[in-house]
Amino acid sequence: MEYMYIAVIAGVLGLAFALFSVFYVLRQGEGSERMREISAAVKEGALAFLHREYQILAIFVVVVAIILGFVLGWWVALAFVFGALCSMGAGYAGMNMAIRSNARTAAAAEKSLNQGLRVSFRSGAVMGMCVVGIGIIGLSILYFAFHKFGAEEFIKIIPAYGFGASGVALFSRVGGGIFTKGADAGADLVGKVEAGIPEDDPRNAAVIADFVGDNVGDVAGMGADLFESYVESIIATMALCTVASLGGWLAKDNLTAWYLPMMIAAGGIIASIIGALLVRVGEKPEMGALLTALRRGTFSASILAAIFAFLAVYFLAENLNPFWAVLAGLIAGVLIGESTNYFTSYAYSPTKAVSFASTTGAGATIIRGFANGLLSILPPFIFVAIALMVAFHFASFYGVAIAGIGMLSTLGITLATDAYGPVADNSGGIVEMCHLPPEIRERTDALDSLGNTTAATGKGFAIGSAALTALALMLSYAVAVEIVQIEPGGGIRFSTEVAQKMSLLNAPMIAGLLIGVMLPGIFCSLTLTSVGKTTSLIVDEVRRQFREIKGLWEGTARPEYGRCVDICTKTALKEMLIPALMAIVVPIIVGFVLGKYALVGFLMGAIASGFLLAITMANAGGSWDNAKKWIERGNYGGKGSDAHKAGVVGDTAGDPMKDTSGPSLNIMIKLMSVISLVLAPVMVSWGGYTTW
Amino acid sequence: MEYMYIAVIAGVLGLAFALFSVFYVLRQGEGSERMREISAAVKEGALAFLHREYQILAIFVVVVAIILGFVLGWWVALAFVFGALCSMGAGYAGMNMAIRSNARTAAAAEKSLNQGLRVSFRSGAVMGMCVVGIGIIGLSILYFAFHKFGAEEFIKIIPAYGFGASGVALFSRVGGGIFTKGADAGADLVGKVEAGIPEDDPRNAAVIADFVGDNVGDVAGMGADLFESYVESIIATMALCTVASLGGWLAKDNLTAWYLPMMIAAGGIIASIIGALLVRVGEKPEMGALLTALRRGTFSASILAAIFAFLAVYFLAENLNPFWAVLAGLIAGVLIGESTNYFTSYAYSPTKAVSFASTTGAGATIIRGFANGLLSILPPFIFVAIALMVAFHFASFYGVAIAGIGMLSTLGITLATDAYGPVADNSGGIVEMCHLPPEIRERTDALDSLGNTTAATGKGFAIGSAALTALALMLSYAVAVEIVQIEPGGGIRFSTEVAQKMSLLNAPMIAGLLIGVMLPGIFCSLTLTSVGKTTSLIVDEVRRQFREIKGLWEGTARPEYGRCVDICTKTALKEMLIPALMAIVVPIIVGFVLGKYALVGFLMGAIASGFLLAITMANAGGSWDNAKKWIERGNYGGKGSDAHKAGVVGDTAGDPMKDTSGPSLNIMIKLMSVISLVLAPVMVSWGGYTTW
Repeated sequence: MEYMYIAVIAGVLGLAFALFSVFYVLRQGEGSERMREISAAVKEGALAFLHREYQILAIFVVVVAIILGFVLGWWVALAFVFGALCSMGAGYAGMNMAIRSNARTAAAAEKSLNQGLRVSFRSGAVMGMCVVGIGIIGLSILYFAFHKFGAEEFIKIIPAYGFGASGVALFSRVGGGIFTKGADAGADLVGKVEAGIPEDDPRNAAVIADFVGDNVGDVAGMGADLFESYVESIIATMALCTVASLGGWLAKDNLTAWYLPMMIAAGGIIASIIGALLVRVGEKPEMGALLTALRRGTFSASILAAIFAFLAVYFLAENLNPFWAVLAGLIAGVLIGESTNYFTSYAYSPTKAVSFASTTGAGATIIRGFANGLLSILPPFIFVAIALMVAFHFASFYGVAIAGIGMLSTLGITLATDAYGPVADNSGGIVEMCHLPPEIRERTDALDSLGNTTAATGKGFAIGSAALTALALMLSYAVAVEIVQIEPGGGIRFSTEVAQKMSLLNAPMIAGLLIGVMLPGIFCSLTLTSVGKTTSLIVDEVRRQFREIKGLWEGTARPEYGRCVDICTKTALKEMLIPALMAIVVPIIVGFVLGKYALVGFLMGAIASGFLLAITMANAGGSWDNAKKWIERGNYGGKGSDAHKAGVVGDTAGDPMKDTSGPSLNIMIKLMSVISLVLAPVMVSWGGYTTW
Repeated sequence: MEYMYIAVIAGVLGLAFALFSVFYVLRQGEGSERMREISAAVKEGALAFLHREYQILAIFVVVVAIILGFVLGWWVALAFVFGALCSMGAGYAGMNMAIRSNARTAAAAEKSLNQGLRVSFRSGAVMGMCVVGIGIIGLSILYFAFHKFGAEEFIKIIPAYGFGASGVALFSRVGGGIFTKGADAGADLVGKVEAGIPEDDPRNAAVIADFVGDNVGDVAGMGADLFESYVESIIATMALCTVASLGGWLAKDNLTAWYLPMMIAAGGIIASIIGALLVRVGEKPEMGALLTALRRGTFSASILAAIFAFLAVYFLAENLNPFWAVLAGLIAGVLIGESTNYFTSYAYSPTKAVSFASTTGAGATIIRGFANGLLSILPPFIFVAIALMVAFHFASFYGVAIAGIGMLSTLGITLATDAYGPVADNSGGIVEMCHLPPEIRERTDALDSLGNTTAATGKGFAIGSAALTALALMLSYAVAVEIVQIEPGGGIRFSTEVAQKMSLLNAPMIAGLLIGVMLPGIFCSLTLTSVGKTTSLIVDEVRRQFREIKGLWEGTARPEYGRCVDICTKTALKEMLIPALMAIVVPIIVGFVLGKYALVGFLMGAIASGFLLAITMANAGGSWDNAKKWIERGNYGGKGSDAHKAGVVGDTAGDPMKDTSGPSLNIMIKLMSVISLVLAPVMVSWGGYTTW
């Protein structure tokens, strides 16, 4: 039986749910003329950025496709282009929805909180479902097109699909991340700090750029990031088919080893749709009730996904081993999300301690928040290590890859809860800018605040799945490059010469690992600096407008919002190039100089250190953000107190860490791993220039 | 011929130079009664802390010695105790000199700048020479006592000497680091920020604790750190003797393979003495002239050390291979020091950029400084990777270890230039507290400022050598635990089963590596938090004294300095326990749960990630510190401007990073590696509980 049709059906169902959500959202009113006007400005800016970004991407895609075509063949090039197009499509669809939902959410919140949640969540669901739907349909198409070439050819072609998605994700995350935080910090610095006007004040020329940033960074960037994880975890599993099928250990043949990941993913889509339908809330604008509503959705989806995965394994596989791997990944994902929430929400002691530290000054805020971020690496590392051990124990390399699918199987809904945040944030801004009554702002604030919590959970989830996916890709690389021989039953074996080169006791391996550990640090440094540059350009521009535009300060004239959007766009696109190229070029250089063995050490080092820095940055940043919010709720002197000023410093410092550098690392580690996998056929006979 | 006598003679010469410096310094006048009084208070506090710390250490040493005795035999226990005693002796001697030199340096600076430099530098030289002298004599004694047991026994016993030194270093660095930064930040927060009185104002109750901290943290802690690196790099080389002697590849027998590192170290001591004698300066209190004076000393010493190493290799070894390894280490050490200086001195653009960022607020200061710290990992990682490849290429494992000795061979003088800094800092404080004329303060400021530069270089050097030493210890562990078979000519070979377990493609190995990468982060987090706790206790105490002691504010009454010293002592000693125990216990747990193979992955991960975090923290901290100083020199509005306030935030945040957490990581990675080596005889037949 051709099980792949089930995957296609699940994908179509996902897209149908997305479409249904689109119609639902577009049916809602857009509110007053002023609201429509603001929303239109955001829409215009966001689309302008995305179009310019996609132009650069187009050049990148064409150049890389030509290189791939000559080096690895035109089918590989085609798969690469297809992957890039799919990722762009998903990102474009999701963001297009988000920018159409902000005013609608604001207008819906005028009616009721429940209505506000429904509109914004449905808008997020469009992103979530598009990612999983397009992802799985794209992979199915690749399957139908190429699997008849035979397993060996097929698994050489599909990684390029992931590479295409990676490329788009890299540019979206890094470019979008620089845009969003440059605009955000710039708007805050001149507005809140210097001019003393409230956040989202319409006189601030950077405020629209800030809204645009939420969409291009947090929606499109996040979507591309998780699209990449999603398809790459499936690709890694497929590429490792022989591990499962050798001697009929887990699957009776390669075909079954390919069906299995797709069926688990398909089950996850259905589970996500059901979960999404369960999200609804009562009328009291209470954090607790909102969170419960979303949790009901995600937890139900997780349980259903586990059940579907069990069924898929039960009917397809030779034994239940792969199911335990899936379960380990699924549970680890949920736990990592929860741990992120614990370390960054002001409901718990770590973030409260950051608020308290603010009473002794900004220096103490920084230290406490940073210490908090560093401590927060403990659960994700332990959970990933355990999931890895369990998955490996039951299903060897194949298990690690399929555990990644387990973690990501409910992506349809988890991404929905994540992408809804920026919509709620935008809608709150629109409420502010249109001077709507305070009870409306209270509702959008509740939605926004919830968005921060789900964003924290979602971020932990994105990082954890990135690490697991990258590990799986690294293992696929090792198999593809013929470093290791797989034995029936998942055992691995090396020839004697390879063993010496592959151990951690060989100089090129150690050097590779050191360089790998170093690289994410350099990458972070570059992206942090880029945000700083964008910020100071924005600060200068807003100051200039306040100085030169008559009547702006009094509110009789409008600022030139477009100029700030333009500056952010140009700077972000320019600044993203060096880090992006670095992530693409360095693994190739390492592979060619130190050889195919040391490249494993390089990837492993980069994955581990990227994981460490990504979590630290995301959680330190999240915790500074919420520590400030906790003070603003009236603790330690509340708004305007010295503690609050210290809290603001922490928040400002944390913003680019948590929203630019941290998330970009996810892409970096996956991208470097998938490039290695794509290039495996070229590397297979390359021991490097070194003679050790 | 018994070459070891040459080592003993070099050690004795080092100690003689130290003694000569002691007499020189003690001959100098101590200045006015007030100066003597302050100096006496610092002396009392520092000795009180050291005594209490040594009491705790004594318990630790006895307990561990008993365990070692039962598990590995009483000779091992004895070597352990001996190592601890040697390290304590060196630290005690160095600090005892430092606390007797602060007032004398201040008094000498009253005469002339040259005199001030001479006194403070000679005081630092006592520390430097004691460390190398006691280190090499201690190792010689071990050699004479145990080498006749045969190579196999001997190399089981000597690592315990390093373990003893490690234990002392851990407690000194962590405890001293928490003390010094808790006191420093506390004194600044209440004094400079809250009360608006100058730094080192005698009315501030925490000011003596701050001086004490400089001595216990920066002198005793740094000394113990480098004592450890020094002896452990020699021990690792000795333990790897078979790599050199097998088939007479590098050395004709094990004896020669032991002589070689000792002779290179002995040559380094002579080189350092000659270099130290070349340090003198003209009369203009100019940074440039002072720096040139110190550089003349260290560069001459480096060149001489290289020449001596060449002679040692030429006469002792079978070929010149080991010399290239030594040279690689020596050059890498110098370059790492220079790169640290580039990233942290305000003479160069990275730190100036931090100052400039301060004009947009404290958040920008933090981001720019942190980005700077992250970028600064590039040179040390690349230099260590290259040194490792070169050393490995020429002399395999033995080469890596002996490269560490190369890097540390001029320790006698580099440590002198480092330990002199806190003395200069203290003397400046005494000048301030005694209201001496401004030109004297100007001279001590010049000395202090130079001290910051040499401290930055020294810190880079300490970190680089720690990484290389830890790598060498890890390789020694792998040999000792019989994971790898050495072949004549330095080749390595694995049995087929071991190969599978040793590759980076095995789950326990990956899990071990992940946990290793994680641990330094947790360690940093704990130590950062401890500094915060100490700081807030000090702040409370100083506030209390201002409130309760009548006449204190007016300057008619004296604060109770002892109370603050006491609080710092208690808190530091309490807070150091958990991180210290963690560093000792976790490698043992990992070894027993994941097995002896995965422990290699664990160590490798910890070394790489510890290296990354240590450099980032040291250089971000150094760069914040100097960015503030650059503003204070009148740039971007100078003292009191908004930029200055932002700069102070960066400095406060950076202090515990650069002086507590960062340096403590050096010890952590060496300690975990040496514990593994010591326990190798027990681990040798232990595959772990895992069944992969």
